[in-house]
Amino acid sequence: MHFADRLISAVKRVGNPIVVGIDPRPEELPAGFLDGFPSDIPGVAKAIRTFGCAVIDAIYSLVPAVKFQSAFYEAYGPAGISALHETMDYAHSKGLFVIFDGKRNDIGSTAEAYSRAYLGKVLSGESYSPAWYSDAITVNPYLGSDGILPFVKVAAREEKGLFVLVRTSNPSATEFQDLISGDRAIYQHVAQRVAGWAKPYQGASGYSLVGAVVGATAPEQLAEIREALPGILFLVPGYGHQGGTAKDVAAAFDADGSGALINNSRGITFAYSRPSAHSRFGDRWLAAIENAVQEMSADLAQNTTAGRLK
Amino acid sequence: MHFADRLISAVKRVGNPIVVGIDPRPEELPAGFLDGFPSDIPGVAKAIRTFGCAVIDAIYSLVPAVKFQSAFYEAYGPAGISALHETMDYAHSKGLFVIFDGKRNDIGSTAEAYSRAYLGKVLSGESYSPAWYSDAITVNPYLGSDGILPFVKVAAREEKGLFVLVRTSNPSATEFQDLISGDRAIYQHVAQRVAGWAKPYQGASGYSLVGAVVGATAPEQLAEIREALPGILFLVPGYGHQGGTAKDVAAAFDADGSGALINNSRGITFAYSRPSAHSRFGDRWLAAIENAVQEMSADLAQNTTAGRLK
Repeated sequence: MHFADRLISAVKRVGNPIVVGIDPRPEELPAGFLDGFPSDIPGVAKAIRTFGCAVIDAIYSLVPAVKFQSAFYEAYGPAGISALHETMDYAHSKGLFVIFDGKRNDIGSTAEAYSRAYLGKVLSGESYSPAWYSDAITVNPYLGSDGILPFVKVAAREEKGLFVLVRTSNPSATEFQDLISGDRAIYQHVAQRVAGWAKPYQGASGYSLVGAVVGATAPEQLAEIREALPGILFLVPGYGHQGGTAKDVAAAFDADGSGALINNSRGITFAYSRPSAHSRFGDRWLAAIENAVQEMSADLAQNTTAGRLK
Repeated sequence: MHFADRLISAVKRVGNPIVVGIDPRPEELPAGFLDGFPSDIPGVAKAIRTFGCAVIDAIYSLVPAVKFQSAFYEAYGPAGISALHETMDYAHSKGLFVIFDGKRNDIGSTAEAYSRAYLGKVLSGESYSPAWYSDAITVNPYLGSDGILPFVKVAAREEKGLFVLVRTSNPSATEFQDLISGDRAIYQHVAQRVAGWAKPYQGASGYSLVGAVVGATAPEQLAEIREALPGILFLVPGYGHQGGTAKDVAAAFDADGSGALINNSRGITFAYSRPSAHSRFGDRWLAAIENAVQEMSADLAQNTTAGRLK
């Protein structure tokens, strides 16, 4: 089934558009968690794998998707990458949509290698085998079409998707993305190209396998990009820790409550370290995580159209 | 010693500024090479590790640096990443400068995780250990300073470097990089920021630990960016396979022959598949690789100021 149709039906099934971002910073793991593992690099890698799988057990029936921040796994070398690989497979086995957040970018056959790696299959012997399982990857558009179309081609063949960075949620996004060229900002030029890349690849839902990353920290821009990009799924970072609220992300959804996935990383996976959660849940850190998902789901249902999607 | 000073003295030692790009596409390995390995994914990973180490044995006394294209290793999952890790360590053990070409990009603590991963050390137990060895990493500037300064900070602490994509060598680089905003193109805005990021971090050579990726396929732009960015080392892709010649890259060097590294990937590592090399070297593919390095070195010495650097 087409990527967007699969994703939208997963959102409908659980009744919310939440992506749990798994960014395993060792220094933010639950108190004492690391003590159960060797203190060398493979030991930390094992700890972050164990943590990620525990988070998945807690949330897989509550949300449609997880997003893995590759940096925190790459940080622990090949052992960290094995942990990432196993945790991604585990998430997939539990029925979650798996988003590989690597912001990859390169051209031609190198972009094709990234696409085959994460979304498709690679040559081994006379045939092709999958090296990773993910449903979608994040990509950076700075190199233009040469860096995007190889991903689109592989995604189309494999019924997978991609999310192109359009307007990010960080303060210095203004430095290049907001520069004006002609009648519009650079991120609007990127948005226009995204529309072109996406158009031939719509599913039955009307949404394409080419999506966009649009941050929650500039709500007016989010509304304007939503308007400019009908048929494009948004992956929205910035809710929670970075300061975005349900009201800030409301404009990402269409009138039916579809069209956007809202990511929350630290606000969910490290929910137990908030003083309020700590006093309520104590050492029951997985309960704090489940509670954070439920609170976010209620917040989105109340303050956005996401609650309408049934 | 400061990154740029180390790099320039390595260039002086061998007498050329060549970076051998290792992009192990399995389908371009020497005829029969893959037959010596199992045909599953770990087997291919082992083959590309063996190939990379053989290339390093052939070139380590001839050039200052190697650049690893991460995509072709990531393509083979955790086994591919282990092959990358071992090959990078092997290159380092042979005295080569190691450039990790991953074009990473993210913000804040995520960018810091990438920086610590590839250039620095990561938390394990009570202390910090290195997870990878590389001397420099390529990074994408689309997210602005938030995505660059964490790399700069770690590089400064560890005497390492980074190369920021400024103007790439692919045809669609024009789509966003060449858009005009105010009095200059986007890549020129990026160049201006690179100058600012680089300034506090100059070595004795006058060059900074913050470098720039500037493609060889638009020689006028290369000359103009060289003018705009004194004190910035250029990593120049596009020589050889992508069509760039020594004349095209000449403008990347300063008058003394310093200031640029010229990358050649396929033109060196797959030199044996050119008909002329094949008729001369037959199955002696490593001899074809050595010959390609010597030809490129002579070409640069003849047609650029690089020959002046002693």
